Amino acid sequence: MSTATARDRLIDTAQELFAARGVGATSPRAVLAASGVGQGSLYHHFPTKHDLAVAAVGATVEDALARAMHDLRGESPAVRRVVDYLERPRDALAGCRIGRHTSDQAVMDDEGLRDVVTAYFVRLLGVLTEAFREAGLPDDAAGDRAHAALAIVQGGYVLARATQDPDALTAAVRGFVGLLTQKESM
Amino acid sequence: MSTATARDRLIDTAQELFAARGVGATSPRAVLAASGVGQGSLYHHFPTKHDLAVAAVGATVEDALARAMHDLRGESPAVRRVVDYLERPRDALAGCRIGRHTSDQAVMDDEGLRDVVTAYFVRLLGVLTEAFREAGLPDDAAGDRAHAALAIVQGGYVLARATQDPDALTAAVRGFVGLLTQKESM
Repeated sequence: MSTATARDRLIDTAQELFAARGVGATSPRAVLAASGVGQGSLYHHFPTKHDLAVAAVGATVEDALARAMHDLRGESPAVRRVVDYLERPRDALAGCRIGRHTSDQAVMDDEGLRDVVTAYFVRLLGVLTEAFREAGLPDDAAGDRAHAALAIVQGGYVLARATQDPDALTAAVRGFVGLLTQKESM
Repeated sequence: MSTATARDRLIDTAQELFAARGVGATSPRAVLAASGVGQGSLYHHFPTKHDLAVAAVGATVEDALARAMHDLRGESPAVRRVVDYLERPRDALAGCRIGRHTSDQAVMDDEGLRDVVTAYFVRLLGVLTEAFREAGLPDDAAGDRAHAALAIVQGGYVLARATQDPDALTAAVRGFVGLLTQKESM
């Protein structure tokens, strides 16, 4: 296996295990075993668990941002783009692969890793705020509404897992979009 | 220490440790040490970790429901009661003591314990749906809006922890209440 391939394979595997079990509960040894790469590759590419976690969570954040920007950066009117983002299909019962890390003490206690998670949400809030500003809201109100929109997705995931009902997320989105689109011109 | 007191002390201590570290990361031994009760009391009252967790998470749920019902079951108009519930001060950076359990695999994998968490959210959704029905919404729309309202609180906690900014929760609430109260008569 080439060096580049081994590194990618380790990152892919870590992304899967972190999403399923959390960072705190996943050892580098478990990632190594599930990845099928040689032990030397792990320590060569990622001397510490922190290094592996920053790379894997960073890759998850990049994927998620690319998908979000696809919805939020289109040519449609601003509120329509936000609605597209909110209504995108999501694996509700799995939880948000990034939001879940906020309950993982191993992530929150590692400043460098926490920064990766923080950057994701700050970036999304910025783009959502920009969309609501474009829709005509003043700065403060646009920021508040951006927080509400992102909270709907994150809270919808929590409700879906809590009630073991994937429709809890879509219900929360429908409830919010109903309020949003009765007021805004699309 | 009397038997009743030892039991309460174990439950109180477990509630604190579960809220701070999660159920999966907290051993009965750690609860025992922090509680100051004798080892015999622990095994007498709670033969297994499951028993202790169900009692402690159940007590947290009872406390939280009592507080929520205080806001949601008053004499004010229905939307005003929901707004009071949403705007109540919360320790945003600590996360929701119950919502956080949805990311704790030890809770989600234990059916009896998960049922305690599920019951909390189902109960809150029921009372919120009732309030929006009282405000004049048809059943489906009332249910969707109830999901949105509860998602705002749960998602606001996630955003606050993710950005390490307690105002992220209050901003999400402000954004949602702004949409809610421009449409509804209070």
